[in-house]
Amino acid sequence: MKYDVRDLSLAKEGKLRVEWAAQEMPVLAQIKERFKKQKPLKGITVAACLHVTTETAQLAITLKEGGATVALCASNPLSTQDDVAAYLVKDHKISVFAIKGENNKTYYSHINSAIDMSPHITMDDGADVVSILHKSRRDKISGIMGGTEETTTGVIRLRAMAEDGVLGYPIVAVNDANTKHFFDNRYGTGQSTLDGIIRATNRLISGTTFVVAGYGWCGKGLAMRARGLGANVVVTEIDELAALEAVMDGFRVMPMADAAKIGDFFCTVTGNISVIRKEHFRNMKDGAIVSNSGHFNVELDLKGLRSISKKKRVVREYVDEYTLKNGKKINVLGDGRLINLASAEGHPSSVMDMSFANQALCAEYVVKNAKKLEKKVYNVPETIDTAVARMKLKAKGAKIDKLTPEQKIYLNSWEMGT
Amino acid sequence: MKYDVRDLSLAKEGKLRVEWAAQEMPVLAQIKERFKKQKPLKGITVAACLHVTTETAQLAITLKEGGATVALCASNPLSTQDDVAAYLVKDHKISVFAIKGENNKTYYSHINSAIDMSPHITMDDGADVVSILHKSRRDKISGIMGGTEETTTGVIRLRAMAEDGVLGYPIVAVNDANTKHFFDNRYGTGQSTLDGIIRATNRLISGTTFVVAGYGWCGKGLAMRARGLGANVVVTEIDELAALEAVMDGFRVMPMADAAKIGDFFCTVTGNISVIRKEHFRNMKDGAIVSNSGHFNVELDLKGLRSISKKKRVVREYVDEYTLKNGKKINVLGDGRLINLASAEGHPSSVMDMSFANQALCAEYVVKNAKKLEKKVYNVPETIDTAVARMKLKAKGAKIDKLTPEQKIYLNSWEMGT
Amino acid sequence: MKYDVRDLSLAKEGKLRVEWAAQEMPVLAQIKERFKKQKPLKGITVAACLHVTTETAQLAITLKEGGATVALCASNPLSTQDDVAAYLVKDHKISVFAIKGENNKTYYSHINSAIDMSPHITMDDGADVVSILHKSRRDKISGIMGGTEETTTGVIRLRAMAEDGVLGYPIVAVNDANTKHFFDNRYGTGQSTLDGIIRATNRLISGTTFVVAGYGWCGKGLAMRARGLGANVVVTEIDELAALEAVMDGFRVMPMADAAKIGDFFCTVTGNISVIRKEHFRNMKDGAIVSNSGHFNVELDLKGLRSISKKKRVVREYVDEYTLKNGKKINVLGDGRLINLASAEGHPSSVMDMSFANQALCAEYVVKNAKKLEKKVYNVPETIDTAVARMKLKAKGAKIDKLTPEQKIYLNSWEMGT
Amino acid sequence: MKYDVRDLSLAKEGKLRVEWAAQEMPVLAQIKERFKKQKPLKGITVAACLHVTTETAQLAITLKEGGATVALCASNPLSTQDDVAAYLVKDHKISVFAIKGENNKTYYSHINSAIDMSPHITMDDGADVVSILHKSRRDKISGIMGGTEETTTGVIRLRAMAEDGVLGYPIVAVNDANTKHFFDNRYGTGQSTLDGIIRATNRLISGTTFVVAGYGWCGKGLAMRARGLGANVVVTEIDELAALEAVMDGFRVMPMADAAKIGDFFCTVTGNISVIRKEHFRNMKDGAIVSNSGHFNVELDLKGLRSISKKKRVVREYVDEYTLKNGKKINVLGDGRLINLASAEGHPSSVMDMSFANQALCAEYVVKNAKKLEKKVYNVPETIDTAVARMKLKAKGAKIDKLTPEQKIYLNSWEMGT
Repeated sequence: MKYDVRDLSLAKEGKLRVEWAAQEMPVLAQIKERFKKQKPLKGITVAACLHVTTETAQLAITLKEGGATVALCASNPLSTQDDVAAYLVKDHKISVFAIKGENNKTYYSHINSAIDMSPHITMDDGADVVSILHKSRRDKISGIMGGTEETTTGVIRLRAMAEDGVLGYPIVAVNDANTKHFFDNRYGTGQSTLDGIIRATNRLISGTTFVVAGYGWCGKGLAMRARGLGANVVVTEIDELAALEAVMDGFRVMPMADAAKIGDFFCTVTGNISVIRKEHFRNMKDGAIVSNSGHFNVELDLKGLRSISKKKRVVREYVDEYTLKNGKKINVLGDGRLINLASAEGHPSSVMDMSFANQALCAEYVVKNAKKLEKKVYNVPETIDTAVARMKLKAKGAKIDKLTPEQKIYLNSWEMGT
Repeated sequence: MKYDVRDLSLAKEGKLRVEWAAQEMPVLAQIKERFKKQKPLKGITVAACLHVTTETAQLAITLKEGGATVALCASNPLSTQDDVAAYLVKDHKISVFAIKGENNKTYYSHINSAIDMSPHITMDDGADVVSILHKSRRDKISGIMGGTEETTTGVIRLRAMAEDGVLGYPIVAVNDANTKHFFDNRYGTGQSTLDGIIRATNRLISGTTFVVAGYGWCGKGLAMRARGLGANVVVTEIDELAALEAVMDGFRVMPMADAAKIGDFFCTVTGNISVIRKEHFRNMKDGAIVSNSGHFNVELDLKGLRSISKKKRVVREYVDEYTLKNGKKINVLGDGRLINLASAEGHPSSVMDMSFANQALCAEYVVKNAKKLEKKVYNVPETIDTAVARMKLKAKGAKIDKLTPEQKIYLNSWEMGT
Repeated sequence: MKYDVRDLSLAKEGKLRVEWAAQEMPVLAQIKERFKKQKPLKGITVAACLHVTTETAQLAITLKEGGATVALCASNPLSTQDDVAAYLVKDHKISVFAIKGENNKTYYSHINSAIDMSPHITMDDGADVVSILHKSRRDKISGIMGGTEETTTGVIRLRAMAEDGVLGYPIVAVNDANTKHFFDNRYGTGQSTLDGIIRATNRLISGTTFVVAGYGWCGKGLAMRARGLGANVVVTEIDELAALEAVMDGFRVMPMADAAKIGDFFCTVTGNISVIRKEHFRNMKDGAIVSNSGHFNVELDLKGLRSISKKKRVVREYVDEYTLKNGKKINVLGDGRLINLASAEGHPSSVMDMSFANQALCAEYVVKNAKKLEKKVYNVPETIDTAVARMKLKAKGAKIDKLTPEQKIYLNSWEMGT
Repeated sequence: MKYDVRDLSLAKEGKLRVEWAAQEMPVLAQIKERFKKQKPLKGITVAACLHVTTETAQLAITLKEGGATVALCASNPLSTQDDVAAYLVKDHKISVFAIKGENNKTYYSHINSAIDMSPHITMDDGADVVSILHKSRRDKISGIMGGTEETTTGVIRLRAMAEDGVLGYPIVAVNDANTKHFFDNRYGTGQSTLDGIIRATNRLISGTTFVVAGYGWCGKGLAMRARGLGANVVVTEIDELAALEAVMDGFRVMPMADAAKIGDFFCTVTGNISVIRKEHFRNMKDGAIVSNSGHFNVELDLKGLRSISKKKRVVREYVDEYTLKNGKKINVLGDGRLINLASAEGHPSSVMDMSFANQALCAEYVVKNAKKLEKKVYNVPETIDTAVARMKLKAKGAKIDKLTPEQKIYLNSWEMGT
């Protein structure tokens, strides 16, 4: 069995933490029980490139219980939890290739190690496996039945590939499941981003001006939580509809050029590049705190920031203080990497429970439907989505109404009068 | 010119109120200016069955400015504003058939009067015109290019008809425009429903338990506003995903059988029938206040309520007090009709501005594309949706960012690295 | 029996509405039951100058059940509900002097009619009775045991009088009871002010900029509810601490000169004079909507507004449109009088229940302690305050914990270790 | 110079972190500048028993700049930041006696070391110095001019002592300054308690039931933030007025016996003992998470919990999992000590800025007024309170209005008409 982790002796601590996460992952637990009996992934190798956290551990174990051989590598060099990696290798015999803080070269070699295992299914969190397969490992594409993608960012790239006719195998856009992005992006990113910012800074949010760049599901969640902590929230957008929604939700909407001047905190969640640029950094207030919670660390133009700075020092773990040539100090958190993983622990288990339930069920779906699927990006089947919601609701102890026979008839009829 | 309104001498008051609404309808105003010049509806007759309010007046005037002949009838017997009807007839020579409080027979005869004018386009708010055309006026269907539908309820019925292959002409589901249902259903229904309940009762919302039946866009808006006024909100649902969202938004979710026992206020916004039934009424607290804000007055089973009551009296305008056989008193507002129109003035102009901008632009779209459209239910074209958002945002004075050339490339590329 | 009301035949409608209010006034109901038995106000004449509403009717009836002779006049010419006045006269033989819309002369003559009845106790809502007694009816002062005052505004004036040594008899500041101003000012004013604004305008609050002048308890309530309806709220203040609290609550704080330029809605709740002046009106946006919810109609400088206007017309009931010489239109609601009474129905019964329970219990307290009280402004005794809270909580069905014996000891001890 | 800290070599890291805090403490910075010039504490020894954090460091430095000799010991064994302690000793020559995790014996010996320095002024955070002085170091009392107290808990104890006539010297209740408890207790405790809980557990708050015991300022802050993060909040209380306020704020209020059965999270902020007892633990849901954010670790009856448990293990740093004899697992955070210090970093600097500005100014006040002050508990003088608010508001960049001459006259007059 191949693997590359920091230190196997960390397995014991990892075990405790993975068990802690499991308490909040009742949906995946139900799926694991079924997989254990039915082995729907028997003979299947899964290459999963995900944040190596306690929640991902539950997914990996679930896939293995379903009969799969699992190769797990990191989707971000900073997010790996070394004790979890050790635990998966030692106690579960899962091939993990991930070390927290690994450099770029090791990062890519780890992805290649996973590809070396000739996967039938890929699981991506930012399309890195798909990307490498298409760029330099095209020989391995033919053996792949299909893949899944966890992030908005990844889905955008994959749809662009499909549109260009270059996508080599079918992908299920797990990100687009309602039980994924409605919950993970909004409630998960909302809380965990603020958690990351507060851990990194220990600053009071209440009474500050908090600028959220992007009002997609992540941005909505972040804006809602920043307000919930007492901030006066400003939103920047490039889309008319999202901007209008932000206005109607009571937020101020303005271009970043204006927001830059008044913000105490800034956080990008756009999926786009260079959202905060040197012309913005230059006009910020002295002491402004800037972070990113989008998938890639490209949303802040740190190169531009460096070009207008005369000094940079670490003033606190995860806080780089840049002194600009104009004398102002700007604090950048977590080197611009997604802050909820850099300085906190990523999404709480409770939301990952649903995302990863979708992952597990979509892997099963790909195997069952391998022959029918084309080289396209697919939505998560509605039956999977509803099943996940039903299992979660039950775990929450919330009960709902059922349609009466009369109501069913009414909803299906157009003849019933006013 | 044919018409049937209460009293033409009310026109003067109607004029003032329509002008008041116009101040908050800048999007429709822009469209009206263009229509005036381009006359895209020249030679077209529109039969519009909508709530006859100040905002609808703006739409009717806009259509007329675009060259159309307009026949306007009421989509609800209680929602007609007689002064507005008079104003449209007297000052704008628009054929209005609507009298507040008209009985069922007059209501349908008014719809038929509009149909008598042989419309090329129908505009519905609950599918009543479509319904009557298909039931008893089939001769008029052949002359129709297409129609639009304003409500969720109507769209559900029309999709059912399309599915059954019985829909006689194409319909654009204006309700499904993002600039319609995101705003109208959520912000409009949210505020105006509480406005209606407060006007009808003068009760304090703060510190009460408020039960919202249904967590669609209307229900989300209502729950958000009831909480915003200090209520402890309980949600009932039949859909797993919506129920889960309500839980995550911090609301309690339970079956109506449980909610019935603890609510001070109840309001249905489901689009379904008999959501609150006699088994629920019977278990409510003494003095409970029950209303509906869904399109049709079928959501409360008032027949069932009457069957378990021993007395009914009007205790305040729009408040019927039922004394149950078990001694408890239940207050039903506005006879179960949608409360934001029954006891208040319906959606504020600001949201109707967007809905009706979509209506006007979709009417133009139907005329332009009459030959291409099939007998189906169509979504509002995205270009119309975006145009409406852009016009509204501008009117709000909110500015947004534009994509930089680098960002455009990034978003369209899948090759740019991590 | 003397009285002066609009029309006794309105009594029937008044009765229904007073009964409706009674459903939400369980605390006063309990007090009424006790008063009925104990007659603590036997032989006492009470001159009450309050808004003549359904809730005040309950108070008047309670006082009468306690043995008092009651003279009721209006504390505001616009707030009288003629049907309630009729009902009190006809069914309860209470002397009411109040007609909705009465002019200034009648207003004062009505107060004098109440004073003519030689009260032992005065109840004020803005200190008008006290004021007239001290200015022109000093002969009646000697017979007075004491009085109560309902408003912040009144208490400020009365404390100034006491400080100047000119107060002629003791006053209990009912306004300062926790169960009064915490609830009435915050929850009552919050909701009812927005209710008044919405009824007067039918405008959507969501997505607008709402300027609240003053962040006392009324201002806090109003800001909270405006935000709860989706507004972006701006606060103006003259007090450092209140301003800081507003900042920490996430609102923008700025001088009125700056707020004037950005507000869509303005509402004053300061207890001060000329808070919005012509230099502010002049810089407002075209179409701005301005109202007052403070006690007196002096917070808006309408004289100043008229001096910079070229035209004024009524565009909707309760809406005066001023066209400024600079061409902009400013809409003033309810002629600057407190808007929750002008265009809506004042505080909901539920909060008045607590305020008026304090009034009734304080009247009893004044009678019992007449000999001990000095010519000062007194706080409501804590026992009264707690009793009101306990009765309300019970009516709400909420239960609380009781201190254990161990906890009682702990709270009274300073020796128990860390 | 005497001191007892973990390791002087940590000073460098401490320096960076103290500087970081200083950025958010502009009010104290202004005071420090003045103290530096005026030396109002020349010749004065201050024994400060406070949480040894970066913010306290700023206070200690400010006092020293004012001329004082400072002895600093910890008010809680777990809250000491060893690097900060080292920095104060090494760079500022301040006597610090505090080591994170010190046992009870060392804790008290450290307090005695501070007392050994014969203070003129004591600063307490929970009345421990006062307590020890009165119990076992009475000889040192005569030299003391006065003291200050930071917490609600301490003030309650000191008032009890004053009432019993046993308080040996005057105390200023810094806790009761508006600029302290309005901000520190509400905004500081609110955010930092949730920060502590989230760091300890990494659990999602959204969609859970969060039970807050106590609705004082801390409880209000905590409830507001828990709701802000998406929880459904339940409040328990023993005071009628506070309970009623919670109801009106939209929370459910119930006895702990009922809340115990439905909570996912529990947090006590009461200042009382044994608020959650074994009869409550026994009925909690499996997996319930219980913490305390009140000053002393007595609010959870952990002895009672142990008596009904069969197993206890650490499952995550700061998380003790108790397995009850009935099989359920209960997770207790930070051993019941105040969670915002145990697992997070205590109040953010921004709120401590105001609390400690009050501390510094009250120390100056005690020195200036030593002869006038009696052995009582004093409120913070209003001039100090207002000065702190003014300085903070300025630092926040928020401007407010000033009274016009006309307004000043109006507010001081009772003769100005309606």
